[in-house]
Amino acid sequence: MIYRYDFGTPLETGAIVSDVPVCSGDIRHFTAETDSSGPVSLTIRPGRDDILFGLGETLRSMNKRGYLYRSWNMDDFSHTENKHGIYASHNLLLFTGECGLFGVYIDDPGDVRWDLGYTDIDLVRITSVNGNFSCYIIEEDSLTGICRTFRKLTGRSYIPPPWAFGYIQSRWGYASSEDAERVLNEHRTRHIPLDAVSMDIDYMDRYMDFTWDKDKIPDLKKLCADMRSRHARLIPIIDAGVKQLDGYSVYDEGAEKGFFCKKADGTDFVAGVWPGYSCFPDFFRPAVRTWFGRKYHAMMDAGIEGFWNDMNEPALFYTPEKLQEMRNKARELLKKDAPLTEYETLKHIGSDLPNNDEDYRRFYHVLNGKTVRHDTVHNIYGAHMTMAAAEGAKSFDPDKRFLLFSRSSFAGAHRCGGVWQGDNSSWWSHILLNLRMMPSLNMAGFLYCGADLGGFSCDTTEDLMTRWLQLGVFTPLMRNHSALGAREQEVYRFSTWQDMRSVIRVRYALIPYLYSEFMKCALTDSMMYRPLAFDYPEDPLACRVEDQVMLGEDCMIAPVYEQNARGRCVYLPEAMLMIRFRSPEDADLIPLGKGHHYIDLALNEFPLFIRRGHIIPLVKAAESTDDIDTSSLFLYGWIEKDTSFTIYDDDGFTTAPDLEKGLRHIQVSIRDGKAAAGSDGLSLSTDHLILM
Amino acid sequence: MIYRYDFGTPLETGAIVSDVPVCSGDIRHFTAETDSSGPVSLTIRPGRDDILFGLGETLRSMNKRGYLYRSWNMDDFSHTENKHGIYASHNLLLFTGECGLFGVYIDDPGDVRWDLGYTDIDLVRITSVNGNFSCYIIEEDSLTGICRTFRKLTGRSYIPPPWAFGYIQSRWGYASSEDAERVLNEHRTRHIPLDAVSMDIDYMDRYMDFTWDKDKIPDLKKLCADMRSRHARLIPIIDAGVKQLDGYSVYDEGAEKGFFCKKADGTDFVAGVWPGYSCFPDFFRPAVRTWFGRKYHAMMDAGIEGFWNDMNEPALFYTPEKLQEMRNKARELLKKDAPLTEYETLKHIGSDLPNNDEDYRRFYHVLNGKTVRHDTVHNIYGAHMTMAAAEGAKSFDPDKRFLLFSRSSFAGAHRCGGVWQGDNSSWWSHILLNLRMMPSLNMAGFLYCGADLGGFSCDTTEDLMTRWLQLGVFTPLMRNHSALGAREQEVYRFSTWQDMRSVIRVRYALIPYLYSEFMKCALTDSMMYRPLAFDYPEDPLACRVEDQVMLGEDCMIAPVYEQNARGRCVYLPEAMLMIRFRSPEDADLIPLGKGHHYIDLALNEFPLFIRRGHIIPLVKAAESTDDIDTSSLFLYGWIEKDTSFTIYDDDGFTTAPDLEKGLRHIQVSIRDGKAAAGSDGLSLSTDHLILM
Repeated sequence: MIYRYDFGTPLETGAIVSDVPVCSGDIRHFTAETDSSGPVSLTIRPGRDDILFGLGETLRSMNKRGYLYRSWNMDDFSHTENKHGIYASHNLLLFTGECGLFGVYIDDPGDVRWDLGYTDIDLVRITSVNGNFSCYIIEEDSLTGICRTFRKLTGRSYIPPPWAFGYIQSRWGYASSEDAERVLNEHRTRHIPLDAVSMDIDYMDRYMDFTWDKDKIPDLKKLCADMRSRHARLIPIIDAGVKQLDGYSVYDEGAEKGFFCKKADGTDFVAGVWPGYSCFPDFFRPAVRTWFGRKYHAMMDAGIEGFWNDMNEPALFYTPEKLQEMRNKARELLKKDAPLTEYETLKHIGSDLPNNDEDYRRFYHVLNGKTVRHDTVHNIYGAHMTMAAAEGAKSFDPDKRFLLFSRSSFAGAHRCGGVWQGDNSSWWSHILLNLRMMPSLNMAGFLYCGADLGGFSCDTTEDLMTRWLQLGVFTPLMRNHSALGAREQEVYRFSTWQDMRSVIRVRYALIPYLYSEFMKCALTDSMMYRPLAFDYPEDPLACRVEDQVMLGEDCMIAPVYEQNARGRCVYLPEAMLMIRFRSPEDADLIPLGKGHHYIDLALNEFPLFIRRGHIIPLVKAAESTDDIDTSSLFLYGWIEKDTSFTIYDDDGFTTAPDLEKGLRHIQVSIRDGKAAAGSDGLSLSTDHLILM
Repeated sequence: MIYRYDFGTPLETGAIVSDVPVCSGDIRHFTAETDSSGPVSLTIRPGRDDILFGLGETLRSMNKRGYLYRSWNMDDFSHTENKHGIYASHNLLLFTGECGLFGVYIDDPGDVRWDLGYTDIDLVRITSVNGNFSCYIIEEDSLTGICRTFRKLTGRSYIPPPWAFGYIQSRWGYASSEDAERVLNEHRTRHIPLDAVSMDIDYMDRYMDFTWDKDKIPDLKKLCADMRSRHARLIPIIDAGVKQLDGYSVYDEGAEKGFFCKKADGTDFVAGVWPGYSCFPDFFRPAVRTWFGRKYHAMMDAGIEGFWNDMNEPALFYTPEKLQEMRNKARELLKKDAPLTEYETLKHIGSDLPNNDEDYRRFYHVLNGKTVRHDTVHNIYGAHMTMAAAEGAKSFDPDKRFLLFSRSSFAGAHRCGGVWQGDNSSWWSHILLNLRMMPSLNMAGFLYCGADLGGFSCDTTEDLMTRWLQLGVFTPLMRNHSALGAREQEVYRFSTWQDMRSVIRVRYALIPYLYSEFMKCALTDSMMYRPLAFDYPEDPLACRVEDQVMLGEDCMIAPVYEQNARGRCVYLPEAMLMIRFRSPEDADLIPLGKGHHYIDLALNEFPLFIRRGHIIPLVKAAESTDDIDTSSLFLYGWIEKDTSFTIYDDDGFTTAPDLEKGLRHIQVSIRDGKAAAGSDGLSLSTDHLILM
């Protein structure tokens, strides 16, 4: 059940697809307080042990209790615990416990503060700074039900092509055809599976969107074709800012048509990003989205089938206005002889240049025909860039799925593309962060997601890379990506690359299953990754688990995330079969009862837990998704009686997949202590079923 | 057994107190490689599962395997995983596994790199950048034995007064008599135990060492006396840099006597720190130490009995030379119109100003009569400031113990004072960091240590403060300290302050026991905190435990370090009795067998594990160490037969404590299923002994 309450004059965010009537009377669960200066707060006093889930792409634990979060999309690559928010805003928060079972969604495109027991451990206060928003209270009989209803409110999740589940190698620094081909060669030569190479900003001509440096990539079409012939693809980056350069057609057109965001004086807003001074498409206007979306066609024409959209918070390095302030401050300072002040001031002189609130108040959009200042709609900018890209893909080929993932996002964008979890670091704690964000992003509708495996900034280590890949096996987006200047971390650079290859090969053995689970979730508005509390709400131990996650209908994952660990404690909320993988061909099958277990896991081992009575199919590992043979399935599970399972498949391209048509039901029966399974046209191995 | 090998021309670090003859022939265990440009490397290939302990105050795990560390004392407050070192250098590394059981101590006062499987997962490379050092290889039959031998090599650990085990409230920002008295009042009114208030730099007159602002502290002697009458003390900070100001007697004297570090041209080296331009006492010269040490007397005269020495890496904010370079660079830049360059340059313009290598090559010391450039002896500067302070305390009153703790340190300083673990953050991960550093610091001889509870920088939360205090109960230095600008975190500021008070009261019930264990360790060259591997080397599970630590002879600790956790997994390498404390008066006693256990721990609960067959005594909690009554002991333990334990006590002031004289042996016998214990003049309660 959904209850809608409007405060102030709500703005259209693009999140909502269902008409929900506005309720009159007091808001359920909360006390609403309106500040005469504008802000509106919703407060509630949950029980001391009540749990709060949600907020999508945020730092810290899955249970969000006890900290102060801020919905304010921000390009800040240093994800230390104290940060209040990062690149995305996902305003869905779930409550469970003494205070009830419900979700609250704040449909506000601007600044929202979530004081979840920070100021007062027993008080939750959600504040819309602008006070103009719709609030949806969702009541269902389960956490999963609340998230499903939220998806009905906001629309079906984006569906990528199956090759998006392949392994992707990326690096800030890959710039040329040679780079792409070398990376592909290094993988193919060693039989390390690979489906795509992704390229950061360096491939572009002077960082101009939709261009490529002809010296480095003389023939993009040929590069794409060559890679496709080797069963791989190229994924270029596109940034939000358009370089302000006369003669650059995208800029010229945008300027001429008035498609860029404007300042109060009507001139184009300009800020420095990678290309230098740039303009920012006003993605909220349908005509601008159509225009920008069609710009992707040039690269699609050349054979590109996937893009990552970046810098769309939007990140602003500096504006001419702030830069001038800084120059003036510096000049003033340099006149004096005041060493300490000078040191303190100069040391920090650039620190408020990027992404500052003042600059975000300096420009305007047109939203539904009305002029709105950027800061009131800041959080939906990146989402609308994703919508533009998705519209461009649709206009290019309405019958084909493209891979799209974005750094910044907001509800609504989940219908159009996936996300990666932003610019993380090569820190062990970020494996755990990766894991914890998966279910939170799923709650918000973002099913296709994953983090930069191995870590983006800082130098990775061989074991960190290995352990992180072992988690990446289970995330839809499985991309190894790192920053210019950080240690190079392609798996073939490490002495234990064969162990890493084994990890990636397990991924390929699981891809049909992962794709099947993904599609089931997408087509039934379900979550692929869930905190244990969603599946075992009556189990207080399960409800507090922060380092294990349910995967699909059948599985649980529990990665190792500490250096030098040779294992870890795992809590099983029910009996499960552990597959301890060393490779697809070399794995231990260990039935385990409900309760806490210490699991021994050498660096080259990682576990997958299958709920008792469930069966999952694996395939023979291949070197690309093109080469996966889905006609031979190896069944894994721990069953004691006849059972069945389903697996979904489709042509991988249809944009109108049909769940019922794609589902295959497979029956497994036990006769004389042996399992047997059969299905037309399928070869089914039951050798890995534990019967007892 | 100790083997000494000299490379190049070793410099005197002050670490070594025993004469060890130099061995001829090849170094044991390692391969030595000398680079013609100077550096000397020692390499070894340990087994893949061998464990490396040590390096004292460093980040990351207790097992140091797999990362690159650098001995280079650095004032860097952001302790993220990627950092290679922080404020101290403790060059002891222990190896255990296939490669053998031994320790290596690099007695090098300069830059040392520890590549412990970072570049190549199977290779350990220790590099002395200058190549002038003595290397000591220590072989004993246990990890504990190696550390004991290292202590024999470097001398007995510093012994603080017992009041140093009391609770200390600190804050960067306390500046006045009123501040100290208010903090004391707030604690005493609420019956929150407190032994000292510590003050950061703000109490000083213009940040000048050994001064206090007479407006804020009109009468220091009276303040000390007033606080002492209320059973509390004041602990002021002293910084390494002496303000360069004519008329300031410390500066005038130091300059006149030539006691400050000099540049190549013979003039005093000057750098900006808190007081602005400052000079740096050349602590390596005995006359300078004597001079500086005696400066503490003015404050001791007023009644001060403890100091913390800070900024002694030494931290350098800027030198006039670097500042001028920055000014020139800025001026040059401001002439051009190059926004991106300007942004990039100005944004980072101050970043290489503090603590840069170039400045550390700009000044000189006199060490044993020889002039040495700072960078070759950088890491022993702070240690020698501690030595100066200890010499000052001794010359003030040779029969009295003073509390001294320092930010920067090196072996040798452990004879003269303790350390705090530097400027951490209010991050949950830093509870674990605090725990992991305790045994590493103990290995290096630093027994008196602890971290800023609640976290120094960033904003703490109520539950983080609580959980961190629960660990702090067991660290010798138990200080709540936070930074200017961060959330105020005195326990009385939180709604659950009574729960926090209960935690601190448990500390006071344990102080006689903790002091006793500390003294036993100090007087027998043992470690008070040990990784489980030290006590259970044959137990491979115990050897990998990174979030539990052995405490003294009898106990193990295992703090909760995750937000919203209601418990945690604990591994017991043998049967133990868990005391689950809510307060000294309200605790559960739960006998647990060897193995993994999930322990339920609400926010107001924390555990202490006592090895089966061991007994520990608690006392009635008091509000200050002065008020602790050690004549009534409450015995806790899980025993099945007659047993005994010892407790050490002394007058708390003698600087020549005698272990045998201070030890009291107490016999506990079981008769008819009841325990009985008696000792002259002691009241002993056996109500908390579990017999079975």
